[in-house]
Amino acid sequence: MEKRGELYRGKAKTVFATDDPERLILEFRNDTSAFDGERIEQLDRKGMVNNKFNNFIMAKLESAGIPTQLDKVLSENESLVKKLKMIPVECVVRNISAGSLCRRLGVEEGMDLTPPTFEFFLKNDALHDPMINESHIMTFGWATAEQLERMKELTYQVNSTLQTMFAEAGMLLVDSKLEFGVDSDGEVILGDEFTPDGCRLWDKETRNKLDKDRFRQGLGGVVEAYEEVARRLGVKLD
Amino acid sequence: MEKRGELYRGKAKTVFATDDPERLILEFRNDTSAFDGERIEQLDRKGMVNNKFNNFIMAKLESAGIPTQLDKVLSENESLVKKLKMIPVECVVRNISAGSLCRRLGVEEGMDLTPPTFEFFLKNDALHDPMINESHIMTFGWATAEQLERMKELTYQVNSTLQTMFAEAGMLLVDSKLEFGVDSDGEVILGDEFTPDGCRLWDKETRNKLDKDRFRQGLGGVVEAYEEVARRLGVKLD
Ligand SMILES: Nc1ncnc2c1ncn2[C@@H]1O[C@H](COP(=O)(O)OP(=O)(O)O)[C@@H](O)[C@H]1O
Ligand SMILES: Nc1ncnc2c1ncn2[C@@H]1O[C@H](COP(=O)(O)OP(=O)(O)O)[C@@H](O)[C@H]1O
Ligand SMILES: [Mg+2]
Ligand SMILES: [Mg+2]
Repeated sequence: MEKRGELYRGKAKTVFATDDPERLILEFRNDTSAFDGERIEQLDRKGMVNNKFNNFIMAKLESAGIPTQLDKVLSENESLVKKLKMIPVECVVRNISAGSLCRRLGVEEGMDLTPPTFEFFLKNDALHDPMINESHIMTFGWATAEQLERMKELTYQVNSTLQTMFAEAGMLLVDSKLEFGVDSDGEVILGDEFTPDGCRLWDKETRNKLDKDRFRQGLGGVVEAYEEVARRLGVKLD
Repeated sequence: MEKRGELYRGKAKTVFATDDPERLILEFRNDTSAFDGERIEQLDRKGMVNNKFNNFIMAKLESAGIPTQLDKVLSENESLVKKLKMIPVECVVRNISAGSLCRRLGVEEGMDLTPPTFEFFLKNDALHDPMINESHIMTFGWATAEQLERMKELTYQVNSTLQTMFAEAGMLLVDSKLEFGVDSDGEVILGDEFTPDGCRLWDKETRNKLDKDRFRQGLGGVVEAYEEVARRLGVKLD
């Protein structure tokens, strides 16, 4: 497998082609962004931690029967993944209120959400990733009805699988953001990443934040928190 | 039937109790508000026009099989309606892009939306009526799953019934906002109002605006436009 040209440089990862038309390389950079890319900083070790963390989680999800992009880790910062045609929406599932949900609905942080809420957002930085719904997705053709149902189903499966896994390691999975794509067989597959950059994790006892909110809120110790999460789960970092 | 005390003074209507515990009086005032009540003006004749217009539309919808609050017109500005326990969400259906949809999704005004989009908004001026989805409604208990499905079904029925009616009178029904409530039998019933205050109507040929956007956008001739819509439909105003 040979690395080819850069296809896309996102806010946190760079995507490269390979000599296999069905495979891509995701390079996890140290760049950490907030507020739709308005604030960006380099955080030492973050790319490495997220790369290994993501592979650990995707492997966990695969073994729970969820189809993911996972192929293999290539280096400290790079992984080989299945090339997907990404669906331009983000799927957000929430077990506890936090972030934009609190601002939008005027509710306090930390409320149990039963059943978990599910939201679609359009992936569009210029529009600040607006919340959308199923009728928008259908009318504007961002996904088919079947893909939309499958994304919801898989998101709930990911949530319950990981909620249990994090609970066993002393953490609360507050919410998470997933991105899906379609493979060459037309299957909906979990793509992108699952890392503390795109979910919220709190310590079960203290409710200390162990995710990117430490960066957004200037709490410090961002990568140290990610490493602590990895340690508790048994993710091998070095 | 005897009018009793004021129960609620909204932005455009005042609600009175009656001696019948299952009936209310809605008084349509001349107040016209925009931007969640930030701008309010009195527009001569508007209360009367909207009162008669609303009764005409609700009667039309009743005869199309849609359960509404309709009882009867009591005076120029007042109608007797079925008392409902209002569900605190607004149902918005759109046939053509306009208003907040354009701002949120970055699309131009005037695009055909096929199929029509459907959105729920939380009725909450302080939060600026945020868009919500079915999972929020379930998790926060704003309606049951059955009520939510029924509101959607009835909203689409209202939309197609009125789209045809307006088309026959040379107008395009661009979008509309409906509010539902539950009656003493637990049935979901169309409440509140259907007037040019809560929908968008364009002339079919010129696409001139004949609704509250004339007020929001300072185009003038607001009540004159409402009267023109009423005239075209054959609503008797005086
Ligand atoms: N398996 C995959 N196949 C194709 N594209 C992918 C895959 N996984 C992630 N992507 C895309 O690669 C980009 C990852 O880089 P990222 O820094 O997260 O970008 P962004 O700033 O757009 O969020 C995203 O646009 C994402 O949708
Ligand atoms: N049939 C009904 N039974 C009970 N309440 C109703 C009924 N129809 C409308 N309402 C409520 O009466 C109020 C109407 O006044 P309005 O000026 O539109 O208020 P708002 O500023 O809250 O929109 C609204 O709160 C609406 O939900
Ligand atoms: Mg990303
Ligand atoms: Mg109102």
